Amino acid sequence: MRQPLARELHDLLERGRDRQLRLAVTGLSRSGKTAFLTSLVNQLRHAGLEARLDLLPVAREGRLLGARRVNQQDLGVPRFPYDQAMAALDATPPHWPEPTRGISELRLTIRYRPTRRGLLGGETRELALDLFDYPGEWLLDLPLLEHDYPSWSLAQQPARGHERAALFTDWLAAAAELDPAAAADEGQLAELAERYAEGLRAAREAGFADLQPGRFLLPGELAGAPVLQFFPLPGIEGAERAALDRLPPESNYATLAKRFRHYQQHIVRPFYRDHFRRFDRQIVLVDLLGALNAGPERFEDLSRALANLMQSFDYGKRSLLSRLFAPRIDRLAIAATKADHVTPEQHGRLVALLEALLAEPLKDLRFADVPVRALSLAAIRATESREVSHQGRRSPALRGTDLSGEEQLLFPGEVPDRLPDAAFWARQGFDFPAFRPAPREGGALLHIRMDAALDWLIGDKLQ
Amino acid sequence: MRQPLARELHDLLERGRDRQLRLAVTGLSRSGKTAFLTSLVNQLRHAGLEARLDLLPVAREGRLLGARRVNQQDLGVPRFPYDQAMAALDATPPHWPEPTRGISELRLTIRYRPTRRGLLGGETRELALDLFDYPGEWLLDLPLLEHDYPSWSLAQQPARGHERAALFTDWLAAAAELDPAAAADEGQLAELAERYAEGLRAAREAGFADLQPGRFLLPGELAGAPVLQFFPLPGIEGAERAALDRLPPESNYATLAKRFRHYQQHIVRPFYRDHFRRFDRQIVLVDLLGALNAGPERFEDLSRALANLMQSFDYGKRSLLSRLFAPRIDRLAIAATKADHVTPEQHGRLVALLEALLAEPLKDLRFADVPVRALSLAAIRATESREVSHQGRRSPALRGTDLSGEEQLLFPGEVPDRLPDAAFWARQGFDFPAFRPAPREGGALLHIRMDAALDWLIGDKLQ
Repeated sequence: MRQPLARELHDLLERGRDRQLRLAVTGLSRSGKTAFLTSLVNQLRHAGLEARLDLLPVAREGRLLGARRVNQQDLGVPRFPYDQAMAALDATPPHWPEPTRGISELRLTIRYRPTRRGLLGGETRELALDLFDYPGEWLLDLPLLEHDYPSWSLAQQPARGHERAALFTDWLAAAAELDPAAAADEGQLAELAERYAEGLRAAREAGFADLQPGRFLLPGELAGAPVLQFFPLPGIEGAERAALDRLPPESNYATLAKRFRHYQQHIVRPFYRDHFRRFDRQIVLVDLLGALNAGPERFEDLSRALANLMQSFDYGKRSLLSRLFAPRIDRLAIAATKADHVTPEQHGRLVALLEALLAEPLKDLRFADVPVRALSLAAIRATESREVSHQGRRSPALRGTDLSGEEQLLFPGEVPDRLPDAAFWARQGFDFPAFRPAPREGGALLHIRMDAALDWLIGDKLQ
Repeated sequence: MRQPLARELHDLLERGRDRQLRLAVTGLSRSGKTAFLTSLVNQLRHAGLEARLDLLPVAREGRLLGARRVNQQDLGVPRFPYDQAMAALDATPPHWPEPTRGISELRLTIRYRPTRRGLLGGETRELALDLFDYPGEWLLDLPLLEHDYPSWSLAQQPARGHERAALFTDWLAAAAELDPAAAADEGQLAELAERYAEGLRAAREAGFADLQPGRFLLPGELAGAPVLQFFPLPGIEGAERAALDRLPPESNYATLAKRFRHYQQHIVRPFYRDHFRRFDRQIVLVDLLGALNAGPERFEDLSRALANLMQSFDYGKRSLLSRLFAPRIDRLAIAATKADHVTPEQHGRLVALLEALLAEPLKDLRFADVPVRALSLAAIRATESREVSHQGRRSPALRGTDLSGEEQLLFPGEVPDRLPDAAFWARQGFDFPAFRPAPREGGALLHIRMDAALDWLIGDKLQ
C-alpha cells in the first residue's frame, strides 16, 4: 500500500522530534509473538499503577504516567487483537490467545515526565508507539532475493536431514520427470507445486522452520495463482546455465523462472518496501525450549532458519537489504521466550544457549555496528518458582497447571548453556512441559523481564 | 497489480489483430458462475467432436477445430479450477462444483478456419480467449465511488423492507448513540463495524443481494483492518454538512470519513483499474428462479442490486466509469441461468421476466449504444424434458434427481412473464425445485443455449 507523501513527511517530523517510534515484533510461528505484544500493551497500560517495571527507569522513577490506545495510521493493516487476547487470558479456564496470521498493528500514546523538567515544571511529554507483529517466516524469504531461479533451485537442494527429506520424496519423484525444455502444461505445474507446498506444510507440522517460499504456507487470496506455482527444479546442477537461458518462453524452465521472478517482485519486495523499511526497532522471539524438545534435526533446522532470518537485520553497507530498501532499524533485541517454563537459575543458561545458537549472525551484526541485546523473558508468567526439600537438600521447582488442567510441581530440567552436540543429544533428551496461563487477579499481567526488554527497546526515548 | 508496459503493448497488438479477447463472467453469489465457466471451457474443448453447438456458426460450419488450455498471463490471479469442477461433476453421485471466491482466470487458445480462405486454402487461425470469473458483489461497490461519506451514509438509510431492516436493529441501536464530534475510540468503532458486518452477513444468508460495502462480506487478508471498520453514520440527515466538515481529524465523523475514502481508493478502484477496464466482453448471470422462490422482498432487492450492478456497463460519456477508467467492454450478455429447472415452453417467459426486471438499466445501455442481449440458458443441464398424459391431456414435465437423491418427474410451475405485483405474490408462491447434476456419460456437458451465448460473446471473432 503506498504511503501518501504528506504522511511520510509527518512521520519524518514526528520522528525528528522523537515523538514517534515504530517497534516491530517477530518470530517463527509458536515463538510467542501474540503473548509478547499482549503483555507489552498490558504493561504500558498499567504503568504507574500495578505494573511491575523496576528494570525500566522511567517507570521506577515514577515518571511513566501510562499509555492509551489510539487510532493506527495504516488503514489497510489489521489491528492487533489485544482485547481478544485478554479475553482468552481471562476465560475460565484461561487459555493462550489465538496466534495472529500475517501482519497486524496497534498504536499507543505513552505519556511521561522527562528527566529534565522545563522552567514551568510539571511538564509531560508524549511518545507515539506503533507496534507491529508479523510472521518471522516472511523474513525467511529475504535470501530468495539474492538468487535467480537456477541458483535458488541449487540452494534448495542440499540434503537437509533424513526426516525432512522424507517429506519431499513424493514431490521429488514427480518433479524429477519434468523436462525443462518441454512446453509448460499449466495443470502439471500446478500439481507439482501443490505437492511441493504439501511437503512444506508437512515439514512445518513436523516442527521444521527453515521453509521457503514462505507465502506457500499462508497463500491467502493468492491460493491457486500461478505466482505460487513454482518449485526448485531438481537436477539443475548438471545443466549448463547458458543452455537453460536459451530455452523458449513457453518451456517449463522459462515458465518457472518467470513465476519465481514474479514472486520476488510482487510478494517478497512489497513487505520490505511497504513495512519493513519503516520499522525503527525490532525484537525477534525464539522458542528455544520447544526446539530442544523437538530433537537434534529440528534444532539444527531452527539454527539455519534463524541465520537466514537475521540477515534482514545485517545492515552492512554492502548487504542486499541496505542496497534495496535502506532500512532504518537502529536497535535489535533477541529474546528466548517462555523463560517461566524453566526454573530461575536456568535463565542465564537460556541466554547463553541463545547466544551460542546465534553466534554467527551476532558477530555479523556487531561488525555492522547494529546494537543488539540477547535476553530471556516470559511475556505472561504461567508458573510460580518454588523450592522443594528432598532428603535435606533444597532444590528449585516450578508450580503451574499443565495444558490438561493438572496442577504440577516439578523441576523441568536443565538447559544446556552451549550448543548440544550429538553426544549431548544421545545422553539427554529434553521434555520441557507446557503450562497454561495462570488465572488472573486483575491488575497487570505477571511477567519475567518484560521491563528489561522495554528498557532496551524504548527506554532511551522516555528520558 | 501493475501491468508492465511491455505486456500492455503486446495485448494491444494482439487485440488489434483480433487474436486476443478477454471475456468476463460475473453474477451475484449462487447465480451459476462456476457452472457457466466450466461448461464454456468444456464446450470449446469438445468443439468439433461431441459438443452440440448448432447455434454457433463456426461450429455448425465445421470450422471450429477445438481449444487448448494455455498459461494465463496474470501470474497474481488464481487459476479457474476447471479440473476440480469437472471432478465434482464426475463424482458418484455427481454434485455441483464448489463456488469460486474472488477473481480467477483461465486462458484458452481456440483454433478455427476462417470463412474466407487464403490463397493456399487449409489455413487455420488462433484466438487467445482469456476467461475471467469475479463476484458480482464487487460491482455493487461502484456506486460508492460517486459518494462522499455523508452522502453515502444518507443513501444507505432509506427503509428497505422490514425483514432486511430487522437484521440491522442491533447495529442501529448501538450506532445511534455514537457522537460524531467525540474523539474516536478505535475499539468502539471496530465493534460497531463488526455489528454492521454481521448485519450484512445475516442479510446475505437471508437471500438479500443489494449489500454494500462488498468487501465486508469477503474480508480476506484485510480482516480486522481499519479500512473495513466504518459504517453509514445514522441520523446524518439532520446535521449540517459544513458543521460536520469542521469536526477535528480525531473525531468519530472524520475517522469514519477517512476510512470510507481509503476504501474507495484502495479497495474499489484497484479492481476497476487493474482488471475491469481490460475486459472486452462480459456476461452477467442472474438466478431468477431462486429470487422468485425467495419472495417479494428479496425479489425487489435483487432488482435494486442488479440496477446497481448494471451501472458498471453504462458507458454513457458522462458516466462515472467512463470518466474514471475508460473501460472497453463492447458487448454484453445478460442470462437467466438454470433454465433447465423449468419446462422448455417457459424459457421465453424467463427471458421476458429478465427483461422486465432489467427494463431501466437496459434502456440506459441501449441509449449509450452498448450492444446487449438477454437470454436464458442452462450451463450444465440437470434435467430431461418430458411430456406426461393426465386424463387424456398431454402436458410438459421435467425429469431429474433432486438434491436429496430422489428421482422426480414434475411440472415445476409457471414463470411470470412480467414483474409480479403484490396481488400476484399473494395469489401464487413459487417453489421451483433444485436438481443435482445428472451423471455424465463422457463427451461434452449437456447444456441449453450455451452455443447461443458463445455466438453472441465470441462468434464475431471466429469468422
